[in-house]
Amino acid sequence: MSAARKLYDLAAADPDIRFSPFCWRTKLALAHKELAFETIPWRFTEKQEIAFSGQQLVPVLVDGEKTVADSQAIAEYLEATYPDAPSLFGGAEGHALTQFVRRWSDGVLAASLVRILVPDIYQMIDPKDQAYFRESREARLGISIEALAAERSQHLPAFQAALQTLRATLKGQKFLGGETPLYADHIVFGTLQWGVKTSSTPLLETDDRVSEWMQAVLDYYGDRVAL
Amino acid sequence: MSAARKLYDLAAADPDIRFSPFCWRTKLALAHKELAFETIPWRFTEKQEIAFSGQQLVPVLVDGEKTVADSQAIAEYLEATYPDAPSLFGGAEGHALTQFVRRWSDGVLAASLVRILVPDIYQMIDPKDQAYFRESREARLGISIEALAAERSQHLPAFQAALQTLRATLKGQKFLGGETPLYADHIVFGTLQWGVKTSSTPLLETDDRVSEWMQAVLDYYGDRVAL
Repeated sequence: MSAARKLYDLAAADPDIRFSPFCWRTKLALAHKELAFETIPWRFTEKQEIAFSGQQLVPVLVDGEKTVADSQAIAEYLEATYPDAPSLFGGAEGHALTQFVRRWSDGVLAASLVRILVPDIYQMIDPKDQAYFRESREARLGISIEALAAERSQHLPAFQAALQTLRATLKGQKFLGGETPLYADHIVFGTLQWGVKTSSTPLLETDDRVSEWMQAVLDYYGDRVAL
Repeated sequence: MSAARKLYDLAAADPDIRFSPFCWRTKLALAHKELAFETIPWRFTEKQEIAFSGQQLVPVLVDGEKTVADSQAIAEYLEATYPDAPSLFGGAEGHALTQFVRRWSDGVLAASLVRILVPDIYQMIDPKDQAYFRESREARLGISIEALAAERSQHLPAFQAALQTLRATLKGQKFLGGETPLYADHIVFGTLQWGVKTSSTPLLETDDRVSEWMQAVLDYYGDRVAL
Protein backbone atom coordinates (compact mmCIF):
# COMPACT_ATOMS: atom_id res chain seq x y z
CA MET A 1 0.00 0.00 0.00
CA SER A 2 1.46 3.35 -0.98
CA ALA A 3 1.29 6.29 1.39
CA ALA A 4 -1.28 9.01 0.80
CA ARG A 5 -0.10 11.88 -1.42
CA LYS A 6 1.28 14.61 0.84
CA LEU A 7 2.43 18.15 0.26
CA TYR A 8 4.44 20.15 2.77
CA ASP A 9 2.93 23.61 2.53
CA LEU A 10 4.25 26.82 4.10
CA ALA A 11 1.95 28.14 6.84
CA ALA A 12 1.70 31.31 8.91
CA ALA A 13 1.25 31.26 12.68
CA ASP A 14 -2.37 30.49 11.81
CA PRO A 15 -2.02 27.06 10.16
CA ASP A 16 -4.89 27.85 7.79
CA ILE A 17 -3.00 30.72 6.18
CA ARG A 18 -0.93 29.19 3.38
CA PHE A 19 0.97 31.88 1.53
CA SER A 20 3.90 30.40 -0.40
CA PRO A 21 3.72 31.33 -4.10
CA PHE A 22 5.54 28.14 -4.98
CA CYS A 23 3.29 25.89 -2.88
CA TRP A 24 0.26 27.49 -4.56
CA ARG A 25 1.68 26.56 -7.96
CA THR A 26 2.01 22.98 -6.83
CA LYS A 27 -1.46 22.78 -5.27
CA LEU A 28 -3.04 24.04 -8.48
CA ALA A 29 -0.90 21.67 -10.55
CA LEU A 30 -2.02 18.71 -8.42
CA ALA A 31 -5.66 19.80 -8.80
CA HIS A 32 -5.14 20.20 -12.55
CA LYS A 33 -3.87 16.63 -12.71
CA GLU A 34 -6.96 15.57 -10.75
CA LEU A 35 -4.81 14.12 -7.97
CA ALA A 36 -6.04 14.05 -4.40
CA PHE A 37 -3.55 15.23 -1.79
CA GLU A 38 -3.34 16.39 1.76
CA THR A 39 -1.29 19.34 2.88
CA ILE A 40 0.94 19.40 5.91
CA PRO A 41 1.37 22.87 7.39
CA TRP A 42 5.07 23.65 7.66
CA ARG A 43 7.02 26.56 9.08
CA PHE A 44 10.24 28.07 7.75
CA THR A 45 12.40 26.73 10.55
CA GLU A 46 11.07 23.17 10.52
CA LYS A 47 13.97 22.11 8.37
CA GLN A 48 14.21 18.74 10.08
CA GLU A 49 10.67 17.85 9.00
CA ILE A 50 11.66 17.88 5.33
CA ALA A 51 15.28 16.78 5.70
CA PHE A 52 14.29 13.49 4.03
CA SER A 53 13.87 15.48 0.77
CA GLY A 54 17.58 16.34 0.72
CA GLN A 55 16.99 20.09 0.82
CA GLN A 56 15.39 22.72 3.04
CA LEU A 57 12.55 24.41 1.15
CA VAL A 58 8.92 23.74 0.35
CA PRO A 59 7.00 22.65 -1.62
CA VAL A 60 7.96 19.04 -1.01
CA LEU A 61 5.67 16.46 -2.57
CA VAL A 62 5.56 12.89 -1.33
CA ASP A 63 3.80 10.82 -3.96
CA GLY A 64 3.80 7.24 -2.76
CA GLU A 65 7.41 6.10 -2.92
CA LYS A 66 8.58 9.25 -4.64
CA THR A 67 9.70 12.54 -3.06
CA VAL A 68 10.11 15.65 -5.21
CA ALA A 69 11.06 19.16 -4.05
CA ASP A 70 10.94 22.48 -5.96
CA SER A 71 7.76 23.62 -7.68
CA GLN A 72 9.18 23.50 -11.19
CA ALA A 73 10.60 20.00 -10.65
CA ILE A 74 7.25 18.91 -9.23
CA ALA A 75 5.40 20.26 -12.29
CA GLU A 76 7.77 18.38 -14.61
CA TYR A 77 7.36 15.25 -12.49
CA LEU A 78 3.56 15.44 -12.56
CA GLU A 79 3.45 16.03 -16.32
CA ALA A 80 5.74 13.04 -16.96
CA THR A 81 4.14 10.72 -14.39
CA TYR A 82 0.48 11.45 -15.16
CA PRO A 83 0.41 11.92 -18.94
CA ASP A 84 -3.24 10.85 -19.25
CA ALA A 85 -4.49 13.63 -16.97
CA PRO A 86 -4.91 17.13 -18.44
CA SER A 87 -1.60 18.60 -19.56
CA LEU A 88 -0.01 21.34 -17.48
CA PHE A 89 1.80 22.85 -20.45
CA GLY A 90 0.10 21.99 -23.73
CA GLY A 91 2.92 20.11 -25.41
CA ALA A 92 6.53 21.02 -26.07
CA GLU A 93 5.66 24.44 -27.48
CA GLY A 94 3.45 25.32 -24.54
CA HIS A 95 6.15 24.10 -22.17
CA ALA A 96 8.71 26.41 -23.76
CA LEU A 97 6.36 29.41 -23.80
CA THR A 98 5.46 28.79 -20.15
CA GLN A 99 9.09 29.44 -19.24
CA PHE A 100 8.75 33.03 -20.43
CA VAL A 101 5.75 33.50 -18.14
CA ARG A 102 7.71 31.94 -15.28
CA ARG A 103 10.72 34.21 -15.78
CA TRP A 104 8.42 37.23 -15.91
CA SER A 105 6.47 36.13 -12.83
CA ASP A 106 9.61 35.50 -10.78
CA GLY A 107 11.77 38.32 -12.14
CA VAL A 108 9.22 41.12 -12.51
CA LEU A 109 5.97 40.41 -10.68
CA ALA A 110 7.40 38.71 -7.58
CA ALA A 111 10.35 41.11 -7.53
CA SER A 112 7.92 44.02 -7.32
CA LEU A 113 5.84 42.31 -4.62
CA VAL A 114 8.55 41.15 -2.28
CA ARG A 115 9.37 44.65 -1.05
CA ILE A 116 5.70 45.29 -0.37
CA LEU A 117 5.02 42.00 1.40
CA VAL A 118 8.03 41.15 3.53
CA PRO A 119 7.07 43.42 6.47
CA ASP A 120 3.50 42.06 6.41
CA ILE A 121 4.71 38.47 6.24
CA TYR A 122 7.01 39.08 9.19
CA GLN A 123 3.98 40.05 11.29
CA MET A 124 1.96 36.93 10.47
CA ILE A 125 4.45 34.10 10.59
CA ASP A 126 5.01 31.89 13.59
CA PRO A 127 7.13 33.69 16.22
CA LYS A 128 9.65 30.85 16.06
CA ASP A 129 10.24 31.72 12.38
CA GLN A 130 10.75 35.45 12.82
CA ALA A 131 14.49 35.52 13.54
CA TYR A 132 15.22 33.29 10.52
CA PHE A 133 12.90 35.26 8.28
CA ARG A 134 14.36 38.61 9.34
CA GLU A 135 17.94 37.52 8.87
CA SER A 136 17.45 35.84 5.49
CA ARG A 137 15.22 38.54 3.96
CA GLU A 138 17.21 41.49 5.24
CA ALA A 139 20.37 39.91 3.80
CA ARG A 140 18.68 39.19 0.46
CA LEU A 141 17.07 42.62 0.09
CA GLY A 142 19.79 44.68 1.72
CA ILE A 143 17.38 46.59 3.93
CA SER A 144 15.81 46.16 7.36
CA ILE A 145 12.19 45.05 7.65
CA GLU A 146 11.32 48.30 9.44
CA ALA A 147 12.90 50.43 6.69
CA LEU A 148 11.03 48.42 4.08
CA ALA A 149 7.76 48.96 5.89
CA ALA A 150 8.38 52.71 5.97
CA GLU A 151 8.83 52.86 2.18
CA ARG A 152 5.96 50.50 1.35
CA SER A 153 3.99 52.95 -0.77
CA GLN A 154 7.01 53.60 -2.96
CA HIS A 155 6.90 50.02 -4.20
CA LEU A 156 3.25 49.90 -5.22
CA PRO A 157 3.73 51.59 -8.63
CA ALA A 158 6.17 48.91 -9.85
CA PHE A 159 3.64 46.23 -8.91
CA GLN A 160 0.83 48.09 -10.67
CA ALA A 161 3.03 48.52 -13.74
CA ALA A 162 3.85 44.81 -13.78
CA LEU A 163 0.15 43.94 -13.71
CA GLN A 164 -0.39 45.69 -17.05
CA THR A 165 1.02 42.81 -19.09
CA LEU A 166 -1.16 40.31 -17.27
CA ARG A 167 -4.28 42.46 -17.45
CA ALA A 168 -3.83 43.19 -21.16
CA THR A 169 -3.49 39.49 -21.91
CA LEU A 170 -6.52 38.53 -19.83
CA LYS A 171 -8.69 41.12 -21.54
CA GLY A 172 -8.51 38.96 -24.65
CA GLN A 173 -8.92 35.48 -23.17
CA LYS A 174 -10.29 33.63 -20.15
CA PHE A 175 -7.00 32.25 -18.88
CA LEU A 176 -3.33 32.58 -19.81
CA GLY A 177 -3.73 29.05 -21.14
CA GLY A 178 -6.79 30.02 -23.19
CA GLU A 179 -10.19 28.45 -22.49
CA THR A 180 -8.89 26.55 -19.47
CA PRO A 181 -6.02 27.25 -17.06
CA LEU A 182 -2.56 25.82 -17.59
CA TYR A 183 0.57 25.84 -15.45
CA ALA A 184 1.29 29.37 -16.69
CA ASP A 185 -1.88 30.40 -14.84
CA HIS A 186 -0.76 28.48 -11.76
CA ILE A 187 2.58 30.29 -11.75
CA VAL A 188 1.14 33.79 -11.92
CA PHE A 189 -1.80 32.95 -9.66
CA GLY A 190 0.60 31.62 -7.03
CA THR A 191 2.63 34.81 -7.08
CA LEU A 192 -0.44 37.00 -6.67
CA GLN A 193 -2.01 34.70 -4.08
CA TRP A 194 1.12 35.24 -1.99
CA GLY A 195 0.14 38.91 -2.01
CA VAL A 196 -3.56 38.32 -1.40
CA LYS A 197 -2.83 36.10 1.59
CA THR A 198 -0.32 38.40 3.26
CA SER A 199 -0.76 42.04 2.26
CA SER A 200 -2.00 44.37 4.98
CA THR A 201 -3.84 46.41 2.32
CA PRO A 202 -5.81 45.16 -0.70
CA LEU A 203 -3.53 44.87 -3.70
CA LEU A 204 -6.27 44.43 -6.32
CA GLU A 205 -9.70 45.96 -6.75
CA THR A 206 -12.41 43.30 -6.78
CA ASP A 207 -13.61 44.44 -10.21
CA ASP A 208 -10.09 44.29 -11.67
CA ARG A 209 -9.86 41.79 -14.52
CA VAL A 210 -6.96 40.22 -12.63
CA SER A 211 -9.17 39.61 -9.58
CA GLU A 212 -11.87 38.10 -11.78
CA TRP A 213 -9.31 35.78 -13.32
CA MET A 214 -8.00 34.70 -9.90
CA GLN A 215 -11.52 33.83 -8.83
CA ALA A 216 -12.06 31.95 -12.10
CA VAL A 217 -8.94 29.89 -11.43
CA LEU A 218 -10.19 28.96 -7.95
CA ASP A 219 -13.68 28.22 -9.30
CA TYR A 220 -12.23 26.01 -12.03
CA TYR A 221 -10.57 23.71 -9.50
CA GLY A 222 -13.24 24.02 -6.82
CA ASP A 223 -12.85 21.77 -3.82
CA ARG A 224 -9.68 20.23 -5.17
CA VAL A 225 -7.73 23.20 -3.75
CA ALA A 226 -8.90 23.88 -0.22
CA LEU A 227 -6.19 26.09 1.25
CA MET B 1 -2.98 32.34 -62.32
CA SER B 2 -2.80 33.94 -58.91
CA ALA B 3 -0.65 36.98 -58.34
CA ALA B 4 2.72 36.58 -56.65
CA ARG B 5 2.64 36.89 -52.85
CA LYS B 6 3.50 40.47 -51.91
CA LEU B 7 4.20 42.23 -48.65
CA TYR B 8 4.20 46.00 -48.25
CA ASP B 9 7.15 46.61 -45.95
CA LEU B 10 8.09 49.87 -44.25
CA ALA B 11 11.36 51.31 -45.60
CA ALA B 12 13.71 54.12 -44.62
CA ALA B 13 15.03 56.65 -47.14
CA ASP B 14 17.40 53.82 -48.08
CA PRO B 15 14.95 51.23 -49.46
CA ASP B 16 17.09 48.38 -48.14
CA ILE B 17 16.57 49.48 -44.54
CA ARG B 18 13.36 47.79 -43.36
CA PHE B 19 12.70 48.61 -39.74
CA SER B 20 9.04 48.02 -38.87
CA PRO B 21 8.70 45.65 -35.89
CA PHE B 22 5.35 44.48 -37.22
CA CYS B 23 6.61 43.86 -40.77
CA TRP B 24 9.48 41.82 -39.32
CA ARG B 25 6.98 39.63 -37.49
CA THR B 26 5.17 39.00 -40.74
CA LYS B 27 8.32 38.29 -42.76
CA LEU B 28 9.43 35.70 -40.21
CA ALA B 29 5.94 34.21 -40.10
CA LEU B 30 5.90 33.86 -43.89
CA ALA B 31 9.34 32.24 -43.79
CA HIS B 32 8.15 29.93 -41.00
CA LYS B 33 5.25 28.85 -43.21
CA GLU B 34 7.76 28.22 -46.01
CA LEU B 35 5.97 30.70 -48.26
CA ALA B 36 7.88 32.66 -50.90
CA PHE B 37 7.11 36.37 -51.02
CA GLU B 38 8.44 39.59 -52.38
CA THR B 39 8.54 42.79 -50.37
CA ILE B 40 7.52 46.18 -51.68
CA PRO B 41 9.31 49.04 -49.94
CA TRP B 42 6.72 51.46 -48.61
CA ARG B 43 6.97 54.82 -46.87
CA PHE B 44 4.75 56.16 -44.08
CA THR B 45 3.02 58.72 -46.30
CA GLU B 46 2.30 56.41 -49.22
CA LYS B 47 -1.18 55.83 -47.89
CA GLN B 48 -2.65 55.68 -51.39
CA GLU B 49 -0.44 52.68 -52.26
CA ILE B 50 -2.20 50.52 -49.66
CA ALA B 51 -5.65 52.14 -49.77
CA PHE B 52 -6.94 48.94 -51.38
CA SER B 53 -6.42 47.23 -48.00
CA GLY B 54 -9.06 49.46 -46.39
CA GLN B 55 -6.64 50.94 -43.85
CA GLN B 56 -3.41 52.91 -43.72
CA LEU B 57 -0.72 50.85 -42.02
CA VAL B 58 1.74 48.11 -42.94
CA PRO B 59 2.24 45.21 -42.99
CA VAL B 60 -0.21 44.52 -45.80
CA LEU B 61 -0.04 41.04 -47.26
CA VAL B 62 -1.45 40.28 -50.70
CA ASP B 63 -1.73 36.52 -51.01
CA GLY B 64 -3.25 35.79 -54.40
CA GLU B 65 -6.83 37.00 -54.21
CA LYS B 66 -6.63 37.76 -50.50
CA THR B 67 -5.47 40.97 -48.80
CA VAL B 68 -4.78 41.01 -45.06
CA ALA B 69 -3.50 43.92 -42.98
CA ASP B 70 -2.20 43.96 -39.37
CA SER B 71 0.54 41.60 -38.26
CA GLN B 72 -1.59 39.70 -35.78
CA ALA B 73 -4.39 39.23 -38.32
CA ILE B 74 -1.81 38.07 -40.86
CA ALA B 75 -0.40 35.52 -38.43
CA GLU B 76 -3.89 34.17 -37.74
CA TYR B 77 -4.60 34.09 -41.47
CA LEU B 78 -1.41 32.20 -42.25
CA GLU B 79 -2.00 29.65 -39.48
CA ALA B 80 -5.55 29.00 -40.70
CA THR B 81 -4.75 29.01 -44.42
CA TYR B 82 -1.57 26.92 -44.33
CA PRO B 83 -2.25 24.34 -41.62
CA ASP B 84 0.11 21.76 -43.14
CA ALA B 85 3.14 24.04 -42.87
CA PRO B 86 4.90 24.34 -39.48
CA SER B 87 2.63 25.86 -36.85
CA LEU B 88 3.25 29.44 -35.74
CA PHE B 89 1.76 28.86 -32.31
CA GLY B 90 1.88 25.21 -31.32
CA GLY B 91 -1.82 24.56 -30.91
CA ALA B 92 -4.51 26.31 -28.90
CA GLU B 93 -2.42 26.37 -25.72
CA GLY B 94 0.61 27.81 -27.51
CA HIS B 95 -1.62 30.37 -29.19
CA ALA B 96 -2.96 31.54 -25.84
CA LEU B 97 0.48 31.68 -24.22
CA THR B 98 1.85 33.62 -27.20
CA GLN B 99 -0.57 36.43 -26.36
CA PHE B 100 1.23 37.00 -23.08
CA VAL B 101 4.52 37.36 -24.94
CA ARG B 102 2.85 39.76 -27.39
CA ARG B 103 1.41 41.95 -24.65
CA TRP B 104 4.80 42.04 -22.96
CA SER B 105 6.63 42.81 -26.18
CA ASP B 106 4.25 45.64 -27.12
CA GLY B 107 3.56 47.00 -23.65
CA VAL B 108 6.98 46.71 -22.02
CA LEU B 109 9.78 46.07 -24.52
CA ALA B 110 8.53 48.30 -27.35
CA ALA B 111 7.34 50.92 -24.88
CA SER B 112 10.86 51.17 -23.50
CA LEU B 113 12.41 51.30 -26.99
CA VAL B 114 10.18 53.87 -28.63
CA ARG B 115 11.61 56.76 -26.62
CA ILE B 116 15.13 55.70 -27.51
CA LEU B 117 14.47 55.15 -31.20
CA VAL B 118 12.12 57.87 -32.40
CA PRO B 119 14.82 60.54 -32.85
CA ASP B 120 17.05 58.08 -34.72
CA ILE B 121 14.18 56.94 -36.94
CA TYR B 122 13.37 60.55 -37.76
CA GLN B 123 16.88 60.97 -39.16
CA MET B 124 16.75 57.94 -41.43
CA ILE B 125 13.29 58.01 -42.94
CA ASP B 126 12.50 59.49 -46.32
CA PRO B 127 12.34 63.31 -46.11
CA LYS B 128 8.81 63.21 -47.44
CA ASP B 129 7.79 61.18 -44.34
CA GLN B 130 9.40 63.48 -41.76
CA ALA B 131 6.54 65.91 -41.19
CA TYR B 132 4.02 63.08 -40.75
CA PHE B 133 6.34 61.15 -38.48
CA ARG B 134 7.15 64.18 -36.33
CA GLU B 135 3.52 65.17 -35.91
CA SER B 136 2.18 61.69 -35.14
CA ARG B 137 4.99 60.65 -32.76
CA GLU B 138 5.18 63.94 -30.91
CA ALA B 139 1.42 63.77 -30.33
CA ARG B 140 1.59 60.15 -29.19
CA LEU B 141 4.56 60.61 -26.86
CA GLY B 142 3.78 64.13 -25.68
CA ILE B 143 7.32 65.38 -26.28
CA SER B 144 9.28 66.88 -29.17
CA ILE B 145 11.76 64.76 -31.08
CA GLU B 146 14.57 67.09 -30.06
CA ALA B 147 13.65 66.85 -26.38
CA LEU B 148 13.47 63.06 -26.66
CA ALA B 149 16.92 62.98 -28.25
CA ALA B 150 18.32 65.06 -25.39
CA GLU B 151 17.06 62.58 -22.78
CA ARG B 152 17.99 59.43 -24.72
CA SER B 153 20.32 58.00 -22.09
CA GLN B 154 17.60 58.24 -19.45
CA HIS B 155 15.56 55.64 -21.33
CA LEU B 156 18.24 52.99 -21.71
CA PRO B 157 17.82 51.49 -18.18
CA ALA B 158 14.15 50.62 -18.76
CA PHE B 159 15.11 48.82 -21.96
CA GLN B 160 17.90 46.94 -20.22
CA ALA B 161 15.53 45.99 -17.40
CA ALA B 162 12.95 44.71 -19.89
CA LEU B 163 15.57 42.48 -21.52
CA GLN B 164 16.04 40.56 -18.27
CA THR B 165 12.90 38.48 -18.74
CA LEU B 166 13.90 37.56 -22.27
CA ARG B 167 17.50 36.82 -21.38
CA ALA B 168 16.55 34.67 -18.39
CA THR B 169 14.19 32.61 -20.54
CA LEU B 170 16.73 32.16 -23.34
CA LYS B 171 19.40 30.98 -20.92
CA GLY B 172 17.34 27.83 -20.49
CA GLN B 173 16.30 27.13 -24.08
CA LYS B 174 17.26 27.80 -27.69
CA PHE B 175 14.18 29.78 -28.67
CA LEU B 176 11.09 31.12 -26.90
CA GLY B 177 9.29 28.33 -28.77
CA GLY B 178 11.77 25.72 -27.54
CA GLU B 179 13.96 23.80 -29.99
CA THR B 180 12.70 25.83 -32.96
CA PRO B 181 11.31 29.37 -33.23
CA LEU B 182 7.59 30.09 -33.04
CA TYR B 183 5.57 33.24 -33.58
CA ALA B 184 6.47 34.31 -30.04
CA ASP B 185 10.06 34.51 -31.25
CA HIS B 186 8.96 36.48 -34.31
CA ILE B 187 7.14 39.00 -32.13
CA VAL B 188 10.06 39.73 -29.84
CA PHE B 189 12.63 39.50 -32.62
CA GLY B 190 10.67 42.06 -34.64
CA THR B 191 10.60 44.48 -31.75
CA LEU B 192 14.35 44.20 -31.19
CA GLN B 193 15.15 44.26 -34.91
CA TRP B 194 13.38 47.63 -35.03
CA GLY B 195 16.04 48.79 -32.58
CA VAL B 196 18.94 47.07 -34.32
CA LYS B 197 17.98 48.64 -37.67
CA THR B 198 17.52 52.17 -36.39
CA SER B 199 19.46 52.85 -33.20
CA SER B 200 22.37 55.28 -33.52
CA THR B 201 24.22 53.33 -30.83
CA PRO B 202 24.44 49.55 -30.35
CA LEU B 203 21.64 48.37 -28.07
CA LEU B 204 23.00 44.87 -27.45
CA GLU B 205 26.49 43.49 -26.93
CA THR B 206 27.35 40.89 -29.56
CA ASP B 207 28.04 38.29 -26.86
CA ASP B 208 24.69 38.93 -25.16
CA ARG B 209 22.51 35.83 -25.14
CA VAL B 210 19.80 37.98 -26.74
CA SER B 211 22.09 38.81 -29.68
CA GLU B 212 22.99 35.15 -30.10
CA TRP B 213 19.30 34.27 -30.18
CA MET B 214 18.54 36.96 -32.77
CA GLN B 215 21.28 35.56 -34.99
CA ALA B 216 19.94 32.04 -34.45
CA VAL B 217 16.49 33.18 -35.58
CA LEU B 218 17.95 34.67 -38.77
CA ASP B 219 20.09 31.58 -39.35
CA TYR B 220 17.08 29.32 -38.89
CA TYR B 221 15.18 30.97 -41.75
CA GLY B 222 18.24 31.74 -43.87
CA ASP B 223 17.55 33.09 -47.34
CA ARG B 224 13.80 33.02 -46.78
CA VAL B 225 14.09 36.39 -45.02
CA ALA B 226 16.32 38.69 -47.03
CA LEU B 227 15.57 42.14 -45.63
